[in-house]
Amino acid sequence: MSGTFDRVAIAGVGESTYYKHGMSPKSEFELAVEAVTRAAEDSGIPLSSIDGLCSYATDSTNPMRLASAIGIDELRYSNMVWLGGGGGVAAAVANAAAAVQVGYAETVVVFRALAQGEVRFGSGRGPGPGATGPMTYLSPHGVSSPAQTIALKTRRYMHVHGVEQGALAAIALAAYEHAQHNPRAVMYGKPLDRETYDASRWIAEPFHLYDCCQENAGAAAVIVTTTDRAADLKQAPVYFLGAAQGSAPGYDLFDHSVDPYATANFTQVAQRLYALAGIAPADVDVAQVYENFTGAVMMSIIEHGFCEPEEANEFLTVENLLWNTGRLPLNTSGGNLAECYMHGLELVVETVRQLRGTSTCQVADAEIGLVAGGPCTAPVSSLLLRR
Amino acid sequence: MSGTFDRVAIAGVGESTYYKHGMSPKSEFELAVEAVTRAAEDSGIPLSSIDGLCSYATDSTNPMRLASAIGIDELRYSNMVWLGGGGGVAAAVANAAAAVQVGYAETVVVFRALAQGEVRFGSGRGPGPGATGPMTYLSPHGVSSPAQTIALKTRRYMHVHGVEQGALAAIALAAYEHAQHNPRAVMYGKPLDRETYDASRWIAEPFHLYDCCQENAGAAAVIVTTTDRAADLKQAPVYFLGAAQGSAPGYDLFDHSVDPYATANFTQVAQRLYALAGIAPADVDVAQVYENFTGAVMMSIIEHGFCEPEEANEFLTVENLLWNTGRLPLNTSGGNLAECYMHGLELVVETVRQLRGTSTCQVADAEIGLVAGGPCTAPVSSLLLRR
Repeated sequence: MSGTFDRVAIAGVGESTYYKHGMSPKSEFELAVEAVTRAAEDSGIPLSSIDGLCSYATDSTNPMRLASAIGIDELRYSNMVWLGGGGGVAAAVANAAAAVQVGYAETVVVFRALAQGEVRFGSGRGPGPGATGPMTYLSPHGVSSPAQTIALKTRRYMHVHGVEQGALAAIALAAYEHAQHNPRAVMYGKPLDRETYDASRWIAEPFHLYDCCQENAGAAAVIVTTTDRAADLKQAPVYFLGAAQGSAPGYDLFDHSVDPYATANFTQVAQRLYALAGIAPADVDVAQVYENFTGAVMMSIIEHGFCEPEEANEFLTVENLLWNTGRLPLNTSGGNLAECYMHGLELVVETVRQLRGTSTCQVADAEIGLVAGGPCTAPVSSLLLRR
Repeated sequence: MSGTFDRVAIAGVGESTYYKHGMSPKSEFELAVEAVTRAAEDSGIPLSSIDGLCSYATDSTNPMRLASAIGIDELRYSNMVWLGGGGGVAAAVANAAAAVQVGYAETVVVFRALAQGEVRFGSGRGPGPGATGPMTYLSPHGVSSPAQTIALKTRRYMHVHGVEQGALAAIALAAYEHAQHNPRAVMYGKPLDRETYDASRWIAEPFHLYDCCQENAGAAAVIVTTTDRAADLKQAPVYFLGAAQGSAPGYDLFDHSVDPYATANFTQVAQRLYALAGIAPADVDVAQVYENFTGAVMMSIIEHGFCEPEEANEFLTVENLLWNTGRLPLNTSGGNLAECYMHGLELVVETVRQLRGTSTCQVADAEIGLVAGGPCTAPVSSLLLRR
């Protein structure tokens, strides 16, 4: 385990039932309680002894109300990461880890809940007098959603580096294949093949329907605690190696005048991540990379050092991304595309399962797992865990 | 300096000009840039090398826009503490300190900006169909603002422990006296005496007008960095001893059915703060305690261990709270009441001045300073700094 984070382990993970958007019989708050309760059961930690709460992306769950609902004895730390899921997923875990490492709290739950009634990303950004910032220039031309802006960045990247549609398709197909082994997945029992992918409608070229994340309802939770406490619990501890959050100068998803333009914005963050954790990309056994859109996953994988841009077509194949044949098993629960869009926190849950050896698509002898948060946003974040 | 935070120092502080609410010629964003720029100048750190941004209470400043505006080379950490100023003030500094300690970033600016256009606390909470939670029961009786609910808690505390109005008056009078020495203070040149205090209108008994914080426009900023970097800068470093954030079980400002009811909610947080920092209340040379209302300051001081509840009338006198005669010099810049309501971050700035020896009401040989965040909220937070 890392020298910097020698006190930090993940002791429990939990998820609500995952639903298609609008199909949850429970409120967002109830889903949060369900996921946190299951994480506590998974770990063997009593809910009352949880003393920290972290989330991100302005999760609507009031932390004090959640603390009361689950019966926390004394809240010692609560934190909400700024902005969306890009900086949020790994950064929320990173903040919990720092809080445990320095002693602000002992047992911090990171959670994210999403259900009906939420404001979807991109909604409200359409053309009109409400547009602000770079959107002022984009919206008159009909560019009003992340799908469109990331499609433009992806097209540029594909043009410059010769990346073909097959690389994007492989990311979607591997996710759907993994979901067929995962009964929790919303797309369980709904396999995808290349013909169906190719025939599906364009959302924003080069993104077909299946290149885009789902909209779901559910909640996920991860319990971060001290290595001392984790040593005596129900599950084998998973250790926190390190995390990084940040952004290249001036990067903006909606600003098409920045240079570099075609990037997932992970170049600097990934370098700092590996330096802090003291490992190299070749040490990573399994990766969960937040899929807003497959093109951004492609850039994220390259910027985390798994292949060169010019190697993308050879590296990003279905075979290379599957749990049992892959050089880089990717999104082994089905991820945002095919398990559940739980704003990426389900990717941390799956990484913990892989490092415990309990995934439904278990990578043999997985020792180190990477989670990359939402790409093409600012900031972005990623983290590394070790068995 | 503390063992836990052996890497963390405060190297710079900055403030915009402070204005009465609605009188700022600058936008909230411009004020934020002004405060951060002045903090960088104060420290000698180039703006470009700032690599972290922290704020709290859903500060409206977009961190990525701020990063662009001040010319940050690479953002490595950004964080927004959940909820309001109570948990926020000290917790935002605490998060920055943890980020520096574990190595997420090297130089983090904590800032808070408030200007015209903001939603004031309590606004929108009035009677009507929009009331939620405990407000559902309070608003039909006309209890719709923090002033009213904290007045009720304070009245209860005064009744149980025999605290008199003079203890509250002393807190206001000391703050105004300190502001007369501080040209930055909005109330500079506007002294207050006991007769004027007594004759001022009730806002919510036992709170006169002068027991309540101002509404202002401005911004404040504090630069947290490594001790190594701080050693070579323009100012003598101030060291971060520790911080605590949290809440007693079930505490809610607007819930009048909780037990204990009459408390600033600092009992557990203060104990953890002193334990983490390894010092005792008697070691504190100067205190800045967030004033929403004087009655809550009174409870905060007691819950931080400076006197027993039954000693409040003898301990909380003007003489005892002034910089040059006090056993506990309090809010030596004028604080939220008389310098500027900068949501408490100006109290961190003043603590740094005290520990550098540069306050306009300098406490002789001040070595350790306490900052307590907004009382009677959930969570609350406080921190300790050392010369």
